[in-house]
Amino acid sequence: MSRALPQVEPDPGLPSRVTVYEVGPRDGLQNESATVPTEVKAELVRRLVAAGLDTVETTSFVHPDWVPQLADAADLLDLLGDEGRGPRRPVLVPNVRGLDRALESGVGAVAIFGSATETFARKNLGRGLAESVAMFAPVVERARAEGLWVRAYVSMCFGDPWEGPVPVPQVVDACRRLMDLGCHQLSIGDTIGVGTVGHVHRLLDALGAAGIGPERVGVHFHDTYGQALANTMAALRDGVTVVDASAGGLGGCPYARSATGNLATEDLVWTLDGAGVETGVDLDALVETSTWLAGRLGRPSPSRVVTALAG
Amino acid sequence: MSRALPQVEPDPGLPSRVTVYEVGPRDGLQNESATVPTEVKAELVRRLVAAGLDTVETTSFVHPDWVPQLADAADLLDLLGDEGRGPRRPVLVPNVRGLDRALESGVGAVAIFGSATETFARKNLGRGLAESVAMFAPVVERARAEGLWVRAYVSMCFGDPWEGPVPVPQVVDACRRLMDLGCHQLSIGDTIGVGTVGHVHRLLDALGAAGIGPERVGVHFHDTYGQALANTMAALRDGVTVVDASAGGLGGCPYARSATGNLATEDLVWTLDGAGVETGVDLDALVETSTWLAGRLGRPSPSRVVTALAG
Repeated sequence: MSRALPQVEPDPGLPSRVTVYEVGPRDGLQNESATVPTEVKAELVRRLVAAGLDTVETTSFVHPDWVPQLADAADLLDLLGDEGRGPRRPVLVPNVRGLDRALESGVGAVAIFGSATETFARKNLGRGLAESVAMFAPVVERARAEGLWVRAYVSMCFGDPWEGPVPVPQVVDACRRLMDLGCHQLSIGDTIGVGTVGHVHRLLDALGAAGIGPERVGVHFHDTYGQALANTMAALRDGVTVVDASAGGLGGCPYARSATGNLATEDLVWTLDGAGVETGVDLDALVETSTWLAGRLGRPSPSRVVTALAG
Repeated sequence: MSRALPQVEPDPGLPSRVTVYEVGPRDGLQNESATVPTEVKAELVRRLVAAGLDTVETTSFVHPDWVPQLADAADLLDLLGDEGRGPRRPVLVPNVRGLDRALESGVGAVAIFGSATETFARKNLGRGLAESVAMFAPVVERARAEGLWVRAYVSMCFGDPWEGPVPVPQVVDACRRLMDLGCHQLSIGDTIGVGTVGHVHRLLDALGAAGIGPERVGVHFHDTYGQALANTMAALRDGVTVVDASAGGLGGCPYARSATGNLATEDLVWTLDGAGVETGVDLDALVETSTWLAGRLGRPSPSRVVTALAG
């Protein structure tokens, strides 16, 4: 079944169209140990766009000491030119300094990276939840004033490695505070991959009740416990239409105990193609891209679809 | 999060209880290249039963030339004694000769292995669809006369490597003919793993319309394209309550291009535990079992949950 494409049998419980939000170049590569040359990153972004990915998060303007893998953010955007700009080529910015650098590079969209838990906020952002929202406020304000599209990631929405289960009202509160800053879209993240389908429904219900409907929400699942695709499908049945995924499963190694891989874009697109849900993505071109990049990274892709189709 | 257990958030769209039909000792081990000593197989079955698996398919009485990995079927059942018998310890039987051998070993349940496609019937059974049903008729008749519980696997229900897409009416017809022989339960198999959620709904709908309701149907998904868990959850939403899975993902290697692995029992149980669906399975004991067996097989388990929790 080399180069087989999924058979189409529409599922009436799913939306007719889904936006795949490709996080591979940023979230994927920042978690890869290999150093990837800037030219290769640029080619990756170009290929992903050519394969039909609607939104591609290109890089991060986090301080190079924190994420050395993406220290070449400005160079990458220079190389990409117009292809790396516009409202559907977001970059991550951690604070106002990062936003300044991103604006100098001419970006049209940014993402901030918040937390649903106090502990992760302190570990990842160096400050508590309230202080981190205060830190993000001028970032979002200035970004909006510059006409940028703004996304807020919320991590640890389903569990936290230090705090354990995270109460749904606490997650809703964190989401509400970030949306109140003026963000256009949330991405609710199961950073450690522990969530299951009932939990997805419950959180989306609670967000809806708090005035954050599924049209404002993207979902970001990790496959640590094999749940990413099942959880994604549960969210789509609840009306979500934006799904984060990483080409070839970039950023996660399935052979490691602490695998924290993102949902592989190919595995998601296989499902959506088969269920008659439009994504605009050319699965064949995407598999070729991930196979090419796996060669550059010197290891096989953890995506099941890439493994099955490539070679 | 070592030894973390999933947080429970019930999902009202799912059944309250699911029977996990454990296929690891048979379907898993017959696809492993390592030779596993009979004593290890016996310990595997005992551990799986002790971990709470309701139904465990123990071995196959297929001719040893075809499946040398399971040539010790009679010896295994001797070793297991009463633990390997009864209506919830089925064995696979290919024909009347296999049934004779299984009956000599005192089994209480058997499974036959049919096909939804002509080509796979010829390749796997050495005869066409009609002739294979004729071959199974005396097997089922005699098994029922001996008071055995009988399951019919139907392979290639979602796609066939030679024929491509398999029309739903053709699958329903193959299922109908096997059920008409007097089988108690069907297991509809996506042997090459290409199916997606809409296809699952459509096939279950069509089976129901043909008088084969979800209470007679088990589902058997492979993770070749990453779809096994998502497809299983789709089937549960349609009323299915029997799910085939393989402890530790036995039988499939995720690193190989032609990975044809079964759904890992641990990944399924993680989902069901989290969604508040009773299975009776002790996930911790199951992970320990798969970790132990992986050591015997000399390779890591492809299950994501085992990878995340073990070590």
